[in-house]
Amino acid sequence: MRVTRNARHPFYERCHEVLDEIRQQGRYRTFTPLSRLTDRFPVYEEGMAPPPEGREVVVWSTNDYLGMGVVPEVMEAAVAAVREHGAGAGGTRNIAGSSPLHTELEAELAALHGKEAGLLFVSGYVSNQATLQTILTSMPGWICFSDQMNHASMIAGIKGARGSQTVIFEHNNLADLEEKLAAAPADAPKLIAFESVYSMDGDISDIAGTCALARKYNALTYLDEVHAVGLYGEEGGGVSQRDAVADQVDIIEGTLAKGFGVHGGYVTASAEIIDFLRSTASGFIFTTALPPSVVGAALVSVKKVRAENWRRDAIFERVHAFRQRLRAAGIPFTMTPSHIIPVPVGDAERCKRISARLLREFGHYATPVNYPTVPVGTERLRLTPGPSHTDEMMDDMVRALSVLFREEGIVHTWQPQPEGVG
Amino acid sequence: MRVTRNARHPFYERCHEVLDEIRQQGRYRTFTPLSRLTDRFPVYEEGMAPPPEGREVVVWSTNDYLGMGVVPEVMEAAVAAVREHGAGAGGTRNIAGSSPLHTELEAELAALHGKEAGLLFVSGYVSNQATLQTILTSMPGWICFSDQMNHASMIAGIKGARGSQTVIFEHNNLADLEEKLAAAPADAPKLIAFESVYSMDGDISDIAGTCALARKYNALTYLDEVHAVGLYGEEGGGVSQRDAVADQVDIIEGTLAKGFGVHGGYVTASAEIIDFLRSTASGFIFTTALPPSVVGAALVSVKKVRAENWRRDAIFERVHAFRQRLRAAGIPFTMTPSHIIPVPVGDAERCKRISARLLREFGHYATPVNYPTVPVGTERLRLTPGPSHTDEMMDDMVRALSVLFREEGIVHTWQPQPEGVG
Ligand SMILES: Cc1ncc(COP(=O)(O)O)c(C=O)c1O
Ligand SMILES: Cc1ncc(COP(=O)(O)O)c(C=O)c1O
Repeated sequence: MRVTRNARHPFYERCHEVLDEIRQQGRYRTFTPLSRLTDRFPVYEEGMAPPPEGREVVVWSTNDYLGMGVVPEVMEAAVAAVREHGAGAGGTRNIAGSSPLHTELEAELAALHGKEAGLLFVSGYVSNQATLQTILTSMPGWICFSDQMNHASMIAGIKGARGSQTVIFEHNNLADLEEKLAAAPADAPKLIAFESVYSMDGDISDIAGTCALARKYNALTYLDEVHAVGLYGEEGGGVSQRDAVADQVDIIEGTLAKGFGVHGGYVTASAEIIDFLRSTASGFIFTTALPPSVVGAALVSVKKVRAENWRRDAIFERVHAFRQRLRAAGIPFTMTPSHIIPVPVGDAERCKRISARLLREFGHYATPVNYPTVPVGTERLRLTPGPSHTDEMMDDMVRALSVLFREEGIVHTWQPQPEGVG
Repeated sequence: MRVTRNARHPFYERCHEVLDEIRQQGRYRTFTPLSRLTDRFPVYEEGMAPPPEGREVVVWSTNDYLGMGVVPEVMEAAVAAVREHGAGAGGTRNIAGSSPLHTELEAELAALHGKEAGLLFVSGYVSNQATLQTILTSMPGWICFSDQMNHASMIAGIKGARGSQTVIFEHNNLADLEEKLAAAPADAPKLIAFESVYSMDGDISDIAGTCALARKYNALTYLDEVHAVGLYGEEGGGVSQRDAVADQVDIIEGTLAKGFGVHGGYVTASAEIIDFLRSTASGFIFTTALPPSVVGAALVSVKKVRAENWRRDAIFERVHAFRQRLRAAGIPFTMTPSHIIPVPVGDAERCKRISARLLREFGHYATPVNYPTVPVGTERLRLTPGPSHTDEMMDDMVRALSVLFREEGIVHTWQPQPEGVG
């Protein structure tokens, strides 16, 4: 192999500089190779080779919160679609890539959120980026009010909308939001972009309150329910469904890759908004449609999750059971009103080391969450127990964490808090 | 269903305005529902219901150029990965979403292009957008020299790179490119972004010439081989492989969704560039990894395409055979040095009508290609015959086109051209 390395071009040197900086800050990422074992989920095989070289570990960091990706009917829907329609879509939605499965899934998602229409994207990231950027460049003068903790994909779309103005409001702070709405010109087109469940802190926004402000100041509302779909609401329609305010939100965005266990993203809204996006969003138009296997599996998953409330009961029971064990063992964690359990560590190096030791010495895997995913100084483990995590796995994990936190000198500062308070 | 339609917000009205405008220009898109039939490719089922309501049609617009998506070993690799690892990845690459399959595919793609490393993205669109935007914001002063006909995904990345400067050069015009490179400050970091096969016109760029200019003016080279991978070069490494200049290109980008018949995108480059992108590109970091089934199928497909030269021979033989029939029937088409056969129509309405009649009356499907995919006035059918299109299908298609072009008053202005000239 002859290697291209144009020593004269400053970019090569810049790569080394940036990577050195990242290493020095202790936040260089090494991806742990993990193969999920469908019949043993949440047990994965760790390593590049099958056992005995690779070994089995319990994973506490999956975003397939309900384990839908390993439900036999979901997997078999993927298999059937591959065998009937092939491994890929073969074209963009416009160029022979729209199958009846795509249309059916879009209708199903619209129904889930009580909206007129839905639109699929290749990922939740792209659904946020493409939708926000397209809306915020649709006419002059847009002002986007963006929650300070919004996800990178929303920020990408908002920043990408040249010509629009961005006003960042304090996280989940309606007083601050109102102040900023009131200060803006009354006739400027406004949009409020926010999430329901914030995935790193596990807190939940006040959707009703935000929508009330939107009505008062005539703003469009854009809600990311990526970490809530499947888990909240009587059919898994997210926090907006649970709080019975979905009809007050103009655009609800979600993913098929977390609570639904498959892949892809979507938005749902009124018919004209969806048709507008379908007809103008570059990130929707100029890319190959999702493979039939992904769409077929997602369709079965969404239908099951809507119908089967016991899955939601099961995850919250397991989350409660795990919190009780952490509490009993005196392991500090942030109490949240969601299914997410952040365990603060507060230092990038130590966070990585605890994660590495947990894996190596105890056979449990929890991703270290460092900058840029969370602010420097708030590094953490982020645990997401689900319906398949057994009591035994929990006991074993809590024992491991106890040992590691003692040895790594993490002080047990946890104070009892009433459950349900953020 | 209570419908959100905030009548006071001007965006709802704006959607109607834009959609009306699109309709008036005759370029409102209706997606034809098509299900591909793996055992009969390129025959698809048309319609929302199975036959007899839906009916079988021959598709001439697939971007699964070689039909790899329906090769049994490729489909069975997807099936095996679904059954072993589930329907989705369950997390970002950092959060439990990196399987050995991902790593292996990245190594395979790096080897295909003779590069040190590769990086997967959820689509070719995202690989272009995220990579270009990340590079062009990596240090101050970047100037991006972008071919005028570059794909929307590259433009998205280039435009998204705030602070960088963009210089558009005339399509495939090295004299214009050189003039513009020479006029730029010598010490500004420069990047030249271009494609090998331009998919709508089917022309091919001069990679060696572009790289020579890049050396002379010390610019980084970024090459989109999306419509070339699998089809050109002795292993399907694209035009850069065919022309033996891959080692002169800094970054080669491709898709798994066209010549390889599956889904997803990638870039390959030197180790430090890939590590830099892996560590800093928002569009790579903050999104769920590709599903194991997609990665597993793509891995088998890339290996087969590399090894099986007869697939490349087959497509070019079929393209040649189809052109001969078009020529014999006096149907105008643009001769290209690639596998792409544009058939000019030149009017959005008429283009749509010919496509619709072709489907309804003759059972053949060719997507009408209108603005914004191509400039207004250059509307066309874009035909991509592949190894599975039989002589009989071709004869039938040419007969249908002859009837339609006569009835729609498209003048047969075609003049014999030596094969191989653009
Ligand atoms: C809040 C939020 N929105 C969007 C996304 C992107 O979704 P996807 O993984 O489907 O790209 C993520 C995480 O990946 C997220 O955390
Ligand atoms: C030149 C070019 N680059 C990139 C893409 C995007 O690739 P993907 O379909 O994998 O998103 C396309 C078409 O879809 C294209 O034509």
